[in-house]
Amino acid sequence: MKVLLIHGPNLHLLGRRQPEVYGTQTLTDINAPLLEIAAQRGVELKIFQSNHEGEIVSVIGDNIDWADGVLINPASYTHTSVAIRDALSAVNLPVIEIHLSNIYAREPFRHRSYINPVAVGVIGGFGAYSYVLALDAIIHILQESQHVH
Amino acid sequence: MKVLLIHGPNLHLLGRRQPEVYGTQTLTDINAPLLEIAAQRGVELKIFQSNHEGEIVSVIGDNIDWADGVLINPASYTHTSVAIRDALSAVNLPVIEIHLSNIYAREPFRHRSYINPVAVGVIGGFGAYSYVLALDAIIHILQESQHVH
Amino acid sequence: MKVLLIHGPNLHLLGRRQPEVYGTQTLTDINAPLLEIAAQRGVELKIFQSNHEGEIVSVIGDNIDWADGVLINPASYTHTSVAIRDALSAVNLPVIEIHLSNIYAREPFRHRSYINPVAVGVIGGFGAYSYVLALDAIIHILQESQHVH
Amino acid sequence: MKVLLIHGPNLHLLGRRQPEVYGTQTLTDINAPLLEIAAQRGVELKIFQSNHEGEIVSVIGDNIDWADGVLINPASYTHTSVAIRDALSAVNLPVIEIHLSNIYAREPFRHRSYINPVAVGVIGGFGAYSYVLALDAIIHILQESQHVH
Amino acid sequence: MKVLLIHGPNLHLLGRRQPEVYGTQTLTDINAPLLEIAAQRGVELKIFQSNHEGEIVSVIGDNIDWADGVLINPASYTHTSVAIRDALSAVNLPVIEIHLSNIYAREPFRHRSYINPVAVGVIGGFGAYSYVLALDAIIHILQESQHVH
Amino acid sequence: MKVLLIHGPNLHLLGRRQPEVYGTQTLTDINAPLLEIAAQRGVELKIFQSNHEGEIVSVIGDNIDWADGVLINPASYTHTSVAIRDALSAVNLPVIEIHLSNIYAREPFRHRSYINPVAVGVIGGFGAYSYVLALDAIIHILQESQHVH
Amino acid sequence: MKVLLIHGPNLHLLGRRQPEVYGTQTLTDINAPLLEIAAQRGVELKIFQSNHEGEIVSVIGDNIDWADGVLINPASYTHTSVAIRDALSAVNLPVIEIHLSNIYAREPFRHRSYINPVAVGVIGGFGAYSYVLALDAIIHILQESQHVH
Amino acid sequence: MKVLLIHGPNLHLLGRRQPEVYGTQTLTDINAPLLEIAAQRGVELKIFQSNHEGEIVSVIGDNIDWADGVLINPASYTHTSVAIRDALSAVNLPVIEIHLSNIYAREPFRHRSYINPVAVGVIGGFGAYSYVLALDAIIHILQESQHVH
Amino acid sequence: MKVLLIHGPNLHLLGRRQPEVYGTQTLTDINAPLLEIAAQRGVELKIFQSNHEGEIVSVIGDNIDWADGVLINPASYTHTSVAIRDALSAVNLPVIEIHLSNIYAREPFRHRSYINPVAVGVIGGFGAYSYVLALDAIIHILQESQHVH
Amino acid sequence: MKVLLIHGPNLHLLGRRQPEVYGTQTLTDINAPLLEIAAQRGVELKIFQSNHEGEIVSVIGDNIDWADGVLINPASYTHTSVAIRDALSAVNLPVIEIHLSNIYAREPFRHRSYINPVAVGVIGGFGAYSYVLALDAIIHILQESQHVH
Amino acid sequence: MKVLLIHGPNLHLLGRRQPEVYGTQTLTDINAPLLEIAAQRGVELKIFQSNHEGEIVSVIGDNIDWADGVLINPASYTHTSVAIRDALSAVNLPVIEIHLSNIYAREPFRHRSYINPVAVGVIGGFGAYSYVLALDAIIHILQESQHVH
Amino acid sequence: MKVLLIHGPNLHLLGRRQPEVYGTQTLTDINAPLLEIAAQRGVELKIFQSNHEGEIVSVIGDNIDWADGVLINPASYTHTSVAIRDALSAVNLPVIEIHLSNIYAREPFRHRSYINPVAVGVIGGFGAYSYVLALDAIIHILQESQHVH
Repeated sequence: MKVLLIHGPNLHLLGRRQPEVYGTQTLTDINAPLLEIAAQRGVELKIFQSNHEGEIVSVIGDNIDWADGVLINPASYTHTSVAIRDALSAVNLPVIEIHLSNIYAREPFRHRSYINPVAVGVIGGFGAYSYVLALDAIIHILQESQHVH
Repeated sequence: MKVLLIHGPNLHLLGRRQPEVYGTQTLTDINAPLLEIAAQRGVELKIFQSNHEGEIVSVIGDNIDWADGVLINPASYTHTSVAIRDALSAVNLPVIEIHLSNIYAREPFRHRSYINPVAVGVIGGFGAYSYVLALDAIIHILQESQHVH
Repeated sequence: MKVLLIHGPNLHLLGRRQPEVYGTQTLTDINAPLLEIAAQRGVELKIFQSNHEGEIVSVIGDNIDWADGVLINPASYTHTSVAIRDALSAVNLPVIEIHLSNIYAREPFRHRSYINPVAVGVIGGFGAYSYVLALDAIIHILQESQHVH
Repeated sequence: MKVLLIHGPNLHLLGRRQPEVYGTQTLTDINAPLLEIAAQRGVELKIFQSNHEGEIVSVIGDNIDWADGVLINPASYTHTSVAIRDALSAVNLPVIEIHLSNIYAREPFRHRSYINPVAVGVIGGFGAYSYVLALDAIIHILQESQHVH
Repeated sequence: MKVLLIHGPNLHLLGRRQPEVYGTQTLTDINAPLLEIAAQRGVELKIFQSNHEGEIVSVIGDNIDWADGVLINPASYTHTSVAIRDALSAVNLPVIEIHLSNIYAREPFRHRSYINPVAVGVIGGFGAYSYVLALDAIIHILQESQHVH
Repeated sequence: MKVLLIHGPNLHLLGRRQPEVYGTQTLTDINAPLLEIAAQRGVELKIFQSNHEGEIVSVIGDNIDWADGVLINPASYTHTSVAIRDALSAVNLPVIEIHLSNIYAREPFRHRSYINPVAVGVIGGFGAYSYVLALDAIIHILQESQHVH
Repeated sequence: MKVLLIHGPNLHLLGRRQPEVYGTQTLTDINAPLLEIAAQRGVELKIFQSNHEGEIVSVIGDNIDWADGVLINPASYTHTSVAIRDALSAVNLPVIEIHLSNIYAREPFRHRSYINPVAVGVIGGFGAYSYVLALDAIIHILQESQHVH
Repeated sequence: MKVLLIHGPNLHLLGRRQPEVYGTQTLTDINAPLLEIAAQRGVELKIFQSNHEGEIVSVIGDNIDWADGVLINPASYTHTSVAIRDALSAVNLPVIEIHLSNIYAREPFRHRSYINPVAVGVIGGFGAYSYVLALDAIIHILQESQHVH
Repeated sequence: MKVLLIHGPNLHLLGRRQPEVYGTQTLTDINAPLLEIAAQRGVELKIFQSNHEGEIVSVIGDNIDWADGVLINPASYTHTSVAIRDALSAVNLPVIEIHLSNIYAREPFRHRSYINPVAVGVIGGFGAYSYVLALDAIIHILQESQHVH
Repeated sequence: MKVLLIHGPNLHLLGRRQPEVYGTQTLTDINAPLLEIAAQRGVELKIFQSNHEGEIVSVIGDNIDWADGVLINPASYTHTSVAIRDALSAVNLPVIEIHLSNIYAREPFRHRSYINPVAVGVIGGFGAYSYVLALDAIIHILQESQHVH
Repeated sequence: MKVLLIHGPNLHLLGRRQPEVYGTQTLTDINAPLLEIAAQRGVELKIFQSNHEGEIVSVIGDNIDWADGVLINPASYTHTSVAIRDALSAVNLPVIEIHLSNIYAREPFRHRSYINPVAVGVIGGFGAYSYVLALDAIIHILQESQHVH
Repeated sequence: MKVLLIHGPNLHLLGRRQPEVYGTQTLTDINAPLLEIAAQRGVELKIFQSNHEGEIVSVIGDNIDWADGVLINPASYTHTSVAIRDALSAVNLPVIEIHLSNIYAREPFRHRSYINPVAVGVIGGFGAYSYVLALDAIIHILQESQHVH
């Protein structure tokens, strides 16, 4: 069972600025327990962060044959990237959309997600724990589909 | 730690009709493992289903002093009920919005949620497993807030 | 052949107020000839009126196994109830939407019907005779489908 | 009692193409029972089909003094013709709008009808039987108005 | 002179929660001076609270013959209930719409009121004193109309 | 100086129906004084009425080489015909748009005119006198342009 | 027969700037022939120009008892002034809206006129000659209404 | 306790025109009882009417140091004046918005109020009595705030 | 291989007016090379021009059994004709939409095409050469589909 | 080099109210350094403040022949005044639009500026320093255009 | 004659995934015949694919002096990239927009193209053959412009 | 005092193409005087140009600890990039948005700026001089904030 986790733009700044506001947790701190849980549950987890829409498109395509499922926090690209949507759609894998914050409690332009309709489901609003829930969910989905086949 | 779980309209029909389409799982089948998990993790879980917007409003208000958190699958009322939103807002508890299906892959009028902005977060698209994830999430949130206090 | 007829909110007031405007015909007066026609044509007709969205949702679900078709005048809930739409959609029976008046000649918010897309057809604008036409239509539909099977 | 029935554009193709999809019933097959029912109930029924918006406008005006009521399936012109609306409005007769299919279950641009607000009522979604219901309805309306005068 | 006062959903929670925010005044505290003023001015005042749209619809219809005027704080149903609008419209009495807060200083979806167009007038933004002003206003209206007749 | 006057759909019905509402003046009655004024002022006036969008398009094109200016009351086609607009635009003559009634005091869909932007000017709301004013205006325009050349 | 003619904002600049673009005709040059025509036809014509919305509102009200009809070129206030609309509506006189240019061939915000729905008719696009036509039209309207009374 | 009352444009025409429609009550008739009530309750009431947006802006600013509260019937400027809104916002006093009629039962462009969001509350639809209620309300608000300080 | 080519309204004017703007090429000049190419490639090409929406609808239906594919430049009807769309949809043949100019560089109302969604593809912006490309394209499509069968 | 500086409505209140919020700087304090800079750089600077849209329109027109450029902070009229736009457009001088605050970070209705499209450029968000920058910019523009001529 | 062909994001995946759906044709298979045709017709064809919006912007700018025309399938960037539009606009060369599928038969957000208005023309819906047609079209355009010069 | 200046996509083309239109000034020519002014006023100025949204996001994040303020001409990304907005928002520095041209006088899609609401202010329309003004402004802002601390 192989899972690709993609962190979108600006997420590399977590914990590096205004720790009194965003907390001191860095992206590395978020990734660590995910790698641990993945190891425990026998899942290969490949993690990737990029500020480039094009790189995210490429990494999705590059993992067509490797990945069984995709976890993605598209961050700002949630609202503007048809290219990432089309990449996810092309690889035809189960996708879970993740958000740290509740995007529906923010500016109206953040209510539109190009990614939503091509994802199996969405988990958002739980901070770093959103990733833990999403990892659990993708494992559940992949196990279910194994039972079917 | 006390959690109120509310199932919205039409969810009582699950498993009673067209099992070849919606599966044979009834609402009772969904509730059973949740009660079990809750028991294991020391959480009191009160479950309520109603087709009535007014009853859902009432049950939220009635549990002001009992509940520490609310899990709600507002179903069709997601898109039309300001009253449930205001009830959730009034009791001022952490709320998680749950959906069986991915509402963003359905008709445009289902993309608007009155509940979203007053919820901590949303989990949708994972079928019955959405509830399991949400129960996990609310326990995480309540534990976090206990650590703070 | 069993048909469920649902009258939505405020229809119980027909004939009780301003007879010079709305006529003196009460809901009972409307129901009487329908019951008679139904009897003549060998149709069991169950009639239900409610001001409660939730009750209408419930009665639809409760008749899953009894009804062969549904006639519904959703009245004001036509424009606001996703829950009734989802109930009708869930029971998966032929549905006919009925209106006393021509809703398209009234305020713009009455031009949107949540019920339309899940109904087989719509009949509106003929006053009490809308129900007579709709009863005729549902019998026609049910007979057609019997021929097929 | 004289009734004008107008079939709009493309309806002359019924039954000529893809019978496995649209059935084998031609426009003549639809008209035959209507003429029979009209004869039985003492109604003169004049039937007209045209692909031309202008011809439909003209035929409505030409029958100002002949017709007591109008049945019209405006087909595609439902959504685009102010001219037909204005013709119907000018002749000031009871009009019933007919549709074979449920236009509200199709593309959004089909949800707008210029004809609706000038019609007494609408009947749609029952295939060829929509015409039978509409003929019954216009006879009912004309009889009612005779009782009044 | 008989006046029906209707409190909409969630208003029963006033004073029961977060007194530091919403004050300690309960719905009973709001009702008491209104009953007193009514008594002083020779008005029968019947007060009703419900979280159910359908119950509010019913209570309006039930008081067709009793009430001379209606005061209503539709709360969340202001923005979503065509059924309450139609009930108020059906009973054909002078109606005053009341709001505790200034709904126009809140979320955009609260700016639309289905009740406004069927009310004589609106009073909002004065907290509990909105009710006192509305009671004064309805008495004024009823007295004026008595002068006319 | 040669002027083409086009009357759009349904205008042939003027005076033939409901004289108590629309007056007894027929289209012939409107045309007579225009022909007289034209004769007095040395203008050749060709008058054309059609219910067909396509005929109006054709007549405009057919008069490319004959006409010096166009007067048009597009009636219902004002709001729906890009083809008439494009015909007027193609012949590249001064055009005046005429309306009997004030279209801005009617339904919102009548506020949009496809013809407006390709006309020199618009005259509307003066009944039959709108034509008299428009004839005066086109003569003024054609005289002005003769002075220039 | 008394007519009030109101010129809106910036019209006092006509002819004072860029004569190669707007011509050398000043507002005085426009008014002169109008006064002459008025004198010839026995009409008292009072002319007023203002850049102030409030002054235009006032002058309309001040002439309630003097004027039989109003000619107004509201210029920029066409698109923004509800106050002028309400003044015109309050005095309840026949009003003709005038424009020098064709406002429908300009920016979209110029397509909306607050004045249109309270005017009898509109004349626009004929430069200074728009005023001549409008004076002719108001005399026609006032003569017609004299015939009626 | 000092209160500034502002009447917006066209209100000076009340009672001067069409008394059979608007009644015979002039603005002076409306002001008289307000001045009396104010005197009785120990309130200084300064009354101002203007048709000029700019004058209303100025008078608000000029009374920064004099007034404790503002009553304003912005009339047509309700829907178009950001300047009056900003003036009210700048002086930072409690403001009550008043309307004679129910603006929500009129044209759609009257449903938008620039003043609403900077007012404490709104009272509308009660004719001249709207002012009486508003005077009562502002006194209540000022008394409440005195209790607090 | 039989192809129907339809030229929409106003295209008969090509080359007849303002040759310095639109060129001297007439519709006959455009058709000539197409007929030649068709002959060379063994395609029967039937060409039709009409200003009438209804005629275009009819000619499409009349060629149900003759044509293997349709080339259409709907011109102005692109943006307004549901009837032509429905005709094309009914005959169920491969359709190519052609435009002389780039409609997306023109007025916004030209950006909507009712024809687009029922066409295989669109070619626009290449002047008369758009037709040459489209003829090549339809031959390619028909050859491909022959290979499949 | 002559520059007209216009301050729009409510700006005369700067520094007179709530100095803890808006600072103690009055309009005079803002003007002083501008006059000084202008003097140093050999620019005649005429400064004008008004709450009246009409006065601003007039002052722009009155300075047609005096001014070489215009600096304007239209304040609230930015969003509502077509008249000021048309005045600026008529005088055909370089205009710079100035704002104290960043209007794009405020309410949505403040995002629309009628002035923007007729200005050379916009400077906003820098408080009183916006004026200093704008004065520098207009001098730059006027010097550039002198170099050209 | 030099032509730049740009393939947008995700097009490198063609033929690599789900060959039963998208066919087995890779991007190389599409390019091969184009290069061949180009060679035959004496055209230098440079081909470029990128998932990066920025790289596409750069490659367009880098070929300002090399290319005579541009063929571009912007894929997902069609709907979101102003930057590519501005690059195409800056280099001021004839551009043809290409699409494999008919974008107007897909989701509404795909109906908007930022590229359309800066392209000479568009060809879409013919699969790989769209490129062949576009290559033919650009050669035609470049030959035409050579004839002119 | 350290300032980061970012030039967005296509700005590297300045002066390289169509000098008769855009002038002969290259980006280097724009940067030179800015570096000089910066040096004179004791400001470190780091300049960066990129066509890549992702690179701009990265460079903003990379300068969190270095920069005291940011000057950015986002060019085409102004209208489409939430990612750059979020980067600017994350680093929490004073930002000034710069435009060469007046974006409000161009296409409607250029009127929306994602950057505006997170910038202190905006300067646009002054060509290369916009940068000079912006550099002056950011120095002013940084000096002000130094005075405060």
